[in-house]
Amino acid sequence: MDDFKVTPWDVEGVVDYNKLIEQFGTSPLTDELIEKTAELTKSELPLFFRRRFFFSHRDYDKVLADYESGRGFFLYTGRGPSGPMHIGHIIPFFATKWLQENFDVNLYIQITDDEKFLFKEKLSFEDTKRWAYENILDIIAVGFDPDKTFIFQNSEFTKIYEMALPIAKKINFSMARAVFGFNEQSKIGMIFYPAIQAAPTFFEKKRCLIPAAIDQDPYWRLQRDFAESLGYYKTAAIHSKFVPGLTSLEGKMSASKPETAVYLTDDPEEAGKKIWKFALTGGQPTLKEQREKGGNPEKCVVFKWFEIFFEPDDEKLMERYRACKAGELTCGQCKRELIERVQKFLKEHQKKRKEAEKKVEKFKYTGELAQEQWDKAIPEPLRT
Amino acid sequence: MDDFKVTPWDVEGVVDYNKLIEQFGTSPLTDELIEKTAELTKSELPLFFRRRFFFSHRDYDKVLADYESGRGFFLYTGRGPSGPMHIGHIIPFFATKWLQENFDVNLYIQITDDEKFLFKEKLSFEDTKRWAYENILDIIAVGFDPDKTFIFQNSEFTKIYEMALPIAKKINFSMARAVFGFNEQSKIGMIFYPAIQAAPTFFEKKRCLIPAAIDQDPYWRLQRDFAESLGYYKTAAIHSKFVPGLTSLEGKMSASKPETAVYLTDDPEEAGKKIWKFALTGGQPTLKEQREKGGNPEKCVVFKWFEIFFEPDDEKLMERYRACKAGELTCGQCKRELIERVQKFLKEHQKKRKEAEKKVEKFKYTGELAQEQWDKAIPEPLRT
Repeated sequence: MDDFKVTPWDVEGVVDYNKLIEQFGTSPLTDELIEKTAELTKSELPLFFRRRFFFSHRDYDKVLADYESGRGFFLYTGRGPSGPMHIGHIIPFFATKWLQENFDVNLYIQITDDEKFLFKEKLSFEDTKRWAYENILDIIAVGFDPDKTFIFQNSEFTKIYEMALPIAKKINFSMARAVFGFNEQSKIGMIFYPAIQAAPTFFEKKRCLIPAAIDQDPYWRLQRDFAESLGYYKTAAIHSKFVPGLTSLEGKMSASKPETAVYLTDDPEEAGKKIWKFALTGGQPTLKEQREKGGNPEKCVVFKWFEIFFEPDDEKLMERYRACKAGELTCGQCKRELIERVQKFLKEHQKKRKEAEKKVEKFKYTGELAQEQWDKAIPEPLRT
Repeated sequence: MDDFKVTPWDVEGVVDYNKLIEQFGTSPLTDELIEKTAELTKSELPLFFRRRFFFSHRDYDKVLADYESGRGFFLYTGRGPSGPMHIGHIIPFFATKWLQENFDVNLYIQITDDEKFLFKEKLSFEDTKRWAYENILDIIAVGFDPDKTFIFQNSEFTKIYEMALPIAKKINFSMARAVFGFNEQSKIGMIFYPAIQAAPTFFEKKRCLIPAAIDQDPYWRLQRDFAESLGYYKTAAIHSKFVPGLTSLEGKMSASKPETAVYLTDDPEEAGKKIWKFALTGGQPTLKEQREKGGNPEKCVVFKWFEIFFEPDDEKLMERYRACKAGELTCGQCKRELIERVQKFLKEHQKKRKEAEKKVEKFKYTGELAQEQWDKAIPEPLRT
């Protein structure tokens, strides 16, 4: 039974993440850093760390050193509001929540309604702002600390413009083009946007830690080029793997292909049907073959979803892996179990999402951190 | 005495302003429009109109029609704070003040600290903001209505960023480059700036009138290209001639050549010496020749300053013109008289400038129009 010495999350999947580390020039998130995280937070690590959903980083070692020395750090993440959020969007927020809770640090969540309005030709400003509101409900439902979390919408917390100016004086057109791929037809709002995106990394004079999927890394490289010349820290990051869509293990769950995604506002019944119909498995063509040869969990979206989010218990996940490999578990049974978990999650999320309506004001304006930030934005003679 | 049928301000000077009208594709400010201005405002026209300091326009006829119909209009002007203001900077503000007073309309004054910081490589943000404060004192000293005038600094009234977004989605890199001359090395903040500059033309759903020197016209052409597609009016403008520096009638008084400018904060004694030493006249090489041939007021900066600002009385100006032409007036005497006027102006201005320190808060935050604008900028839960 040599097979089971290896935990499922160590098995090489469809995406070669080691190659991505090389390609992006980042560092692997080592056992040492993960153990240090457990030690410093005196916590049991969440599956995101245990299973290497986070697998790469920049300066996370320095973040931990800053934490240990008492200097501290802060978290920054964001959301581009151009449509409803799906499971792939929200999982990183749960990881971020764990970081906030266990390091007890401030978290800034940038809602980039400006970006989505500018980059999406057909999206109206009104619609973007409406999606901003909808997405904020989903984010609040994750359960962040309302006094240590500031959710801000760029079109509204426009002090971001002032903060972006020194950054916008450091980046020229050709630098921005190299990362964002601009051309002659690019709108001038798009060209300016990289400065807005970088600004929150300077919200505090501490190191900023950005939890993000690895493909987001290039956007932060610009910041790391000039941060120190402005008297701030290069931002740190921990990089996650991709949350795959229902129909493929390659790439990310995509809102533009509705059959690949389960939306947070999907009716649980409908979500179940969608998973049943579209979820890719690693099963054999016939039940007989499945019993004889076993399935391929490393080629299975259903298993991947359990691994990434829906089976928090490591032993149970390993048992599922073993049973699949041994041909004891059919794809139908496995799908049904995933559907049950997803439906339970959606019901709970939707309940919290409803409750979130009453909390928007606190996260955006009146919570401790929000108030503090707005106080800096409103000229003294106009403050309450 | 045929010479004196022509008023001095009709005499062709060094700059061919008719050619500029052709070059910029604007319309001449006709007698009819000037008479209409007098009729509608029931006022005696100021020298800026009487002497065609304003000589060209775009849609000023429509502005007058809007005023007549009761729809109204508003005024927008600005100042880039990168150094002290001189006489050439302030004269257009006096013209703007006349327009505000006599049409009884709102006026928005944009202090472009963002622009100056971004475009001037060596200017620090702190220095730009300090100049913003200094320049605002000079502007307030002109005597605008504090409840109908909103002086806003872009780095502070950052709602301008939100307002600039729909504009920034209308302008692409090549359009902006055509007007501003950007290249690959241009900072992304500079590239975005045209959207910020255009935003105040949409502060009200009325036609905007911009009083500006004719060379500023291209910056507003962009706005006129997309304004209607955003549901707003193409901005109107009245264009002024240039206020020449002390040493030449060509071009504008320039802050970068200190000997050509009289600063509003200059010690009056020193200002007098500067005029005495540097002011170009149209005099003859010798007093004898001057007495015989007469001077050339159309080639004389001293006369031009009287014409543009320092001799409000038309008859006295014409008498000065005649006396110069007739050789009755020496350049020394004329200079001494100008120095007297300039010194009187500076003393009064500096007194009002001192008083302005107490008025800054009102113009920026607490005056009626300022408060109204900030109310729109501050989210409801945070308003006083």
